[in-house]
Amino acid sequence: MAVNLSAPKPSQLFPIRGVRIGVAEAGIRKAQRKDLTVVLIDEGACVSGVFTQNRFCAAPVQICREHLAMGHGIRAIVINTGNANAGTGEEGLLRARNTCRALADKLKLKAEEVLPFSTGVIMEPLPYERIVAGLPAALADAREDNWLRAAEGIMTTDTVPKAFGKKVMIDGVEVSITGISKGAGMIRPNMATMLGFMATDASVSQTLMKQLACELAEGSFNRITVDGDTSTNDSFVVIASNKAAHSPIESLTTPQGQALKSAMLEVARQLALAIVRDGEGATKLITVQVDGGKTADECRKVAYAIAHSPLVKTAFFASDPNLGRILAAVGYSGIDDLDQTAIDLYLDEVHVARKGGRNPDYREEDGQRVMKQSEIKVRVALGRGACSDTVWTCDLSHEYVSINADYRS
Amino acid sequence: MAVNLSAPKPSQLFPIRGVRIGVAEAGIRKAQRKDLTVVLIDEGACVSGVFTQNRFCAAPVQICREHLAMGHGIRAIVINTGNANAGTGEEGLLRARNTCRALADKLKLKAEEVLPFSTGVIMEPLPYERIVAGLPAALADAREDNWLRAAEGIMTTDTVPKAFGKKVMIDGVEVSITGISKGAGMIRPNMATMLGFMATDASVSQTLMKQLACELAEGSFNRITVDGDTSTNDSFVVIASNKAAHSPIESLTTPQGQALKSAMLEVARQLALAIVRDGEGATKLITVQVDGGKTADECRKVAYAIAHSPLVKTAFFASDPNLGRILAAVGYSGIDDLDQTAIDLYLDEVHVARKGGRNPDYREEDGQRVMKQSEIKVRVALGRGACSDTVWTCDLSHEYVSINADYRS
Repeated sequence: MAVNLSAPKPSQLFPIRGVRIGVAEAGIRKAQRKDLTVVLIDEGACVSGVFTQNRFCAAPVQICREHLAMGHGIRAIVINTGNANAGTGEEGLLRARNTCRALADKLKLKAEEVLPFSTGVIMEPLPYERIVAGLPAALADAREDNWLRAAEGIMTTDTVPKAFGKKVMIDGVEVSITGISKGAGMIRPNMATMLGFMATDASVSQTLMKQLACELAEGSFNRITVDGDTSTNDSFVVIASNKAAHSPIESLTTPQGQALKSAMLEVARQLALAIVRDGEGATKLITVQVDGGKTADECRKVAYAIAHSPLVKTAFFASDPNLGRILAAVGYSGIDDLDQTAIDLYLDEVHVARKGGRNPDYREEDGQRVMKQSEIKVRVALGRGACSDTVWTCDLSHEYVSINADYRS
Repeated sequence: MAVNLSAPKPSQLFPIRGVRIGVAEAGIRKAQRKDLTVVLIDEGACVSGVFTQNRFCAAPVQICREHLAMGHGIRAIVINTGNANAGTGEEGLLRARNTCRALADKLKLKAEEVLPFSTGVIMEPLPYERIVAGLPAALADAREDNWLRAAEGIMTTDTVPKAFGKKVMIDGVEVSITGISKGAGMIRPNMATMLGFMATDASVSQTLMKQLACELAEGSFNRITVDGDTSTNDSFVVIASNKAAHSPIESLTTPQGQALKSAMLEVARQLALAIVRDGEGATKLITVQVDGGKTADECRKVAYAIAHSPLVKTAFFASDPNLGRILAAVGYSGIDDLDQTAIDLYLDEVHVARKGGRNPDYREEDGQRVMKQSEIKVRVALGRGACSDTVWTCDLSHEYVSINADYRS
């Protein structure tokens, strides 16, 4: 069902020196399913992360924030599917801590050097004893060239594993970047996505890592939505193993910093778009670009209003150019002084509405032709400034309802 | 498909002295369908209205605001279905004005004494010549006991006509109230609903009318949502024909004012709930009550986050007590300093979550039993104050997608 998204080719996922990954079947919710992933990080790496803004954030998210803030350095990551460990109160925090401690003991680390991640059903107790029992198999599986299995190991309602890689030259040194993500529903990241992990062997100063993670998230995961539901577990982690032999990058504005960020952003955006392409029930990828705003923030508001409208999304599913629904969404997006007579609407290159009304030259068959494509760009020109923003979403189909009416059964 | 909603009984819809209604088939979009309604109001009545906050508001909404502001008094209303006359630019305004003028000419009124209303597809030209051609038949049909036909005449994707009536004693004088509404999709009124009209023969001072209309809308139409899409055409109009022989009501806080407002609010709320019960594809009516907030406004925010979540709505459709989705929606509703450990969640009388985690006494079969009902109350206790608010919504079913993927075909 995913929109123009095929499984990653192992040859395009580059091993990252200093980062080993192991995957196991721990039977957390269902048997015979890769549901436990560990990431082992050599000493000397820099790690940063951004996390959901949901106030009902999951226990593992709370503990990730705590461990990262301690500044001891991060040496291992443990990820389970089948259970989100969210809405689980004090007991949930305890179980997440116990999971970190169990992995730390096996690796002779401190518990604070481990980051825990969980994804799955909310408000059910985390079966951490199954996770602990699965750790030896995951550790035995640990290798640098295991990214594809990791992408499979973190899937829930995803239909396709999501992983991308890229190489870039920094000061004549070849640097590798590889990332994985998961997510298909409860997707409206507000800092990061359901789960995204990226690693590079580039050398990056620790002080720059938080900024790098934020800027990557802003340009990728923070611009996508499937259903508008911000998850309790959104997490995006960036690892720089510092194994590459170039001088450490101290700023994102130097040529070296720009080269690395731009290559990493390309991977992050592919990972984020893969989530939309694999959005629950998705049959189309919709790019919503809003130009001509007074601020980028108001453009984003308008873009999200369009991207979240069930009426707009069902119209895309039906290939029905019922495009007044887009204008209605622009109208309720929350810009108080919006002048409807300044607004133009385009579907790819088709000029649908001009100055707030139907473009006299618009022919429905042109709209229809674009609506039938699997990838569509909606462009709204607000005519009140020079700022822009873009978000990506998918359509709303029968399959979305089926998936979410059946998810736990 | 509507949830516990049957067609109104004509005997419960009370004629309102001084208010005559006529309905006709004008062939505006489809043949042999009641699609044109006129309301003729005797001199001396007071009329007020509240309208959508959508910045892409329809041409008729703009003209209603203009005509009401002129203060000449309103003597006639003309309503068409099949076309919203929204997203139609200057030409749309002209066509709405021409419609008013045509009706005014036949009634020997000024155009400013007529209010126009349109509902249907957005961004298509209003075929006002068909409306004008249909006016004689509508006028010939005008009677005081025509409310049921009017409720039918304003339907679009509604499956059941929506009309309620009530009588109340004011100073020993019997007063009648009757109202109609329409709407099933693009429902998240932000001032009023798609279309709602209420009339009473009570005597109400003109200065009080705006306040009365606003307070009625606030307690009814402004508390419902089907899909979160605020329409371009939402309008709610209140008519007091002033024919009843009691002293005019000058304040809503006197016993007489309270009696009238309370009876009118009951009718308004029935009209609003009828829209949710008939929500596109609805199989369940969900009441979302949020208690324990610092302000009613933050309670409303939380209630709407729950009511708009596609994941919550599909879980209700499936009778699946996947109730962590409700906690997730509470978490992203936008209260920055929310403490998740203070939050309790109830489904009817079943205590699901306590202090932010699963209630140890909660049994899934109890949640399941409530989820299977056709009417369900979700109650969230925020534990941070003494304020409350309530909104009403419905579930999200396959039928919603079907209806909105096919609406124009």
